[in-house]
Amino acid sequence: MEDNESKSALSVNSGVEQPPIVNPNALAQIKRKKRKPLTLDDYVEGILAGNRTILSQAITLLESSLPEHSELAQQIIEKCLPYSGKSVRLGITGVPGVGKSTFIEAIGGQITALGHQLAVLAIDPSSERSKGSILGDKTRMETLCADPKAFIRPSPSSGSLGGVARKTRETIILCEAAGFDVIFIETVGVGQSETAVHSMVDFFLLLMLAGAGDELQGIKRGIMEMADLIAITKADGVNATKAKSAKIEYQSALMLFPATESGWSPKVETCSSLDNAGIMNIWENIESYVALTQENGYFHNRRKDQARYWMIEAINSRLMRNFYNSREVKANLELLEQQVLDDKISSFAAASKLLSIYYNSEKH
Amino acid sequence: MEDNESKSALSVNSGVEQPPIVNPNALAQIKRKKRKPLTLDDYVEGILAGNRTILSQAITLLESSLPEHSELAQQIIEKCLPYSGKSVRLGITGVPGVGKSTFIEAIGGQITALGHQLAVLAIDPSSERSKGSILGDKTRMETLCADPKAFIRPSPSSGSLGGVARKTRETIILCEAAGFDVIFIETVGVGQSETAVHSMVDFFLLLMLAGAGDELQGIKRGIMEMADLIAITKADGVNATKAKSAKIEYQSALMLFPATESGWSPKVETCSSLDNAGIMNIWENIESYVALTQENGYFHNRRKDQARYWMIEAINSRLMRNFYNSREVKANLELLEQQVLDDKISSFAAASKLLSIYYNSEKH
Repeated sequence: MEDNESKSALSVNSGVEQPPIVNPNALAQIKRKKRKPLTLDDYVEGILAGNRTILSQAITLLESSLPEHSELAQQIIEKCLPYSGKSVRLGITGVPGVGKSTFIEAIGGQITALGHQLAVLAIDPSSERSKGSILGDKTRMETLCADPKAFIRPSPSSGSLGGVARKTRETIILCEAAGFDVIFIETVGVGQSETAVHSMVDFFLLLMLAGAGDELQGIKRGIMEMADLIAITKADGVNATKAKSAKIEYQSALMLFPATESGWSPKVETCSSLDNAGIMNIWENIESYVALTQENGYFHNRRKDQARYWMIEAINSRLMRNFYNSREVKANLELLEQQVLDDKISSFAAASKLLSIYYNSEKH
Repeated sequence: MEDNESKSALSVNSGVEQPPIVNPNALAQIKRKKRKPLTLDDYVEGILAGNRTILSQAITLLESSLPEHSELAQQIIEKCLPYSGKSVRLGITGVPGVGKSTFIEAIGGQITALGHQLAVLAIDPSSERSKGSILGDKTRMETLCADPKAFIRPSPSSGSLGGVARKTRETIILCEAAGFDVIFIETVGVGQSETAVHSMVDFFLLLMLAGAGDELQGIKRGIMEMADLIAITKADGVNATKAKSAKIEYQSALMLFPATESGWSPKVETCSSLDNAGIMNIWENIESYVALTQENGYFHNRRKDQARYWMIEAINSRLMRNFYNSREVKANLELLEQQVLDDKISSFAAASKLLSIYYNSEKH
């Protein structure tokens, strides 16, 4: 440059020296930001190599609402699909206060100590969760967070349950492709999420407190009959006796339930995350369940049913979303619903009217 | 005629006498068949006057698959709607062998003796029912059939559960308009029908046998948590003691369940249709439930929720039917489903493909 300038007809006197730029790292930062975005192959290779940073980025992509992100995410999922499926998927539910995070810390530590790779996912959108969890699960699972064999992903912070459930199911695929062979999906058990969790896991674990009144338990009716194992938590100190008698009560209650399709008799166990007591026993129960259902074919068949269920579920929810989001339906739904509630029109006649409005609007 | 003939230019010798027609009533029958079909007003007036023959004909119309029949049926339902709603709707479930028909006979007789008008409907399509019920419920409820205050309508013999459920809900409207103030909807408790029943009744009654193994009970998991009352049947003779201890067991099991939204604590009672023992007690429980939930507003709110549910349900099932019956979807569904089951494509990608195929075909 200087050579050129000095030879030029336009001669310029050299001025004062440029001041140093304020942030000495700015240039490196700009360079880094301009780094080429990861390609589909980068993502897939990174995930299959077990690279957690890339796995996290792929999940973020999948959670994004930008169409170009979700399109790329879908391609990643399709590429990862053949490498997925080789894990045990566990649903864990329990109301706030039952000690879910400390339980997951305790059992998670034992699972990774056995050599497993553990991913912990959550299904409740943050907005649906009860108070006190704004900081997310990560801050409440410090040991597990530092565990190199564990991967914790807090729930997406917004979205409908259906949307979050779908993303969770897709995240399972990515985690499995990244080599995680035990997947926890946790939920708070007070909303609609449990059916969604139940439809994507192999085993459903319900955490309960001993001696807590109905209000404290707070879980929805129907959840108890989904459970493959009920774990009575905080069975330590003064609580230990209460927990033991709760175990006996629940055991006799479960015996009255109709048989499960899996051939497994749901169990009740006590445990203490504080004393680290009974935790290993719960994991052994899970292993027995997996052995039994893999032997009798239920494990495999249920996975197939779930895959079919999610296809149908995705179709149906999209059909409905298109209907209820249509401008014409929106303009008439509220009035017709009110007429139904006032017994001025039957539910079925109101439905027919809305459907005619919708299909007519679709034709134009 | 004879006069005219004798005056005519074409004279005909009178022949042998015509033989009598084979069936002397044929003429009356033909006349009856040619009778004008009932009009909309005939139906509505007949139903509101409590005419059971016309009520039955209207239900038949509603069950018909002919479009002109169902259109007329819809008009009848809309006209009857303002006169409906003033009944207690009871769901009764229990597997074959639990003594459902004799129980309904026993409690039905007491209900009508109290001055109520009772309608008994069934929700399981005959094809879904277990063996041995081909003759229908009527033959197994002889006393109730002869009771002028009772009306028994067997389940439609065919149709999808969704279709039958909808028809049952519409039949409830007609029965209420005809003055029936207690409606039973019975189901066998082994299929998908219970959720449908649960969504159209005020009170859910589960019949169980004492000491029967899981196989014998045979009801689906999750049903127990829907029950507002569990009645242990056949609590007579050698069974009485077993029934009593079953009652205690179920009572302690129910206490472990989360609280109901209705504010009602589900009960367990024993009864014997043979000795007519405990039957009245069950009816009194139902009356207490109705009083409690009418007082706390749950009864009314639940009815509104159900009306809304059935509108949404009717819309959603029609959207799905149109989708799954479309020629293009039918041509591709099986293959894509197989690819999902073989992990060659994700559930969501398969859903997207089918949806694109469907919406593209709709545009043409």
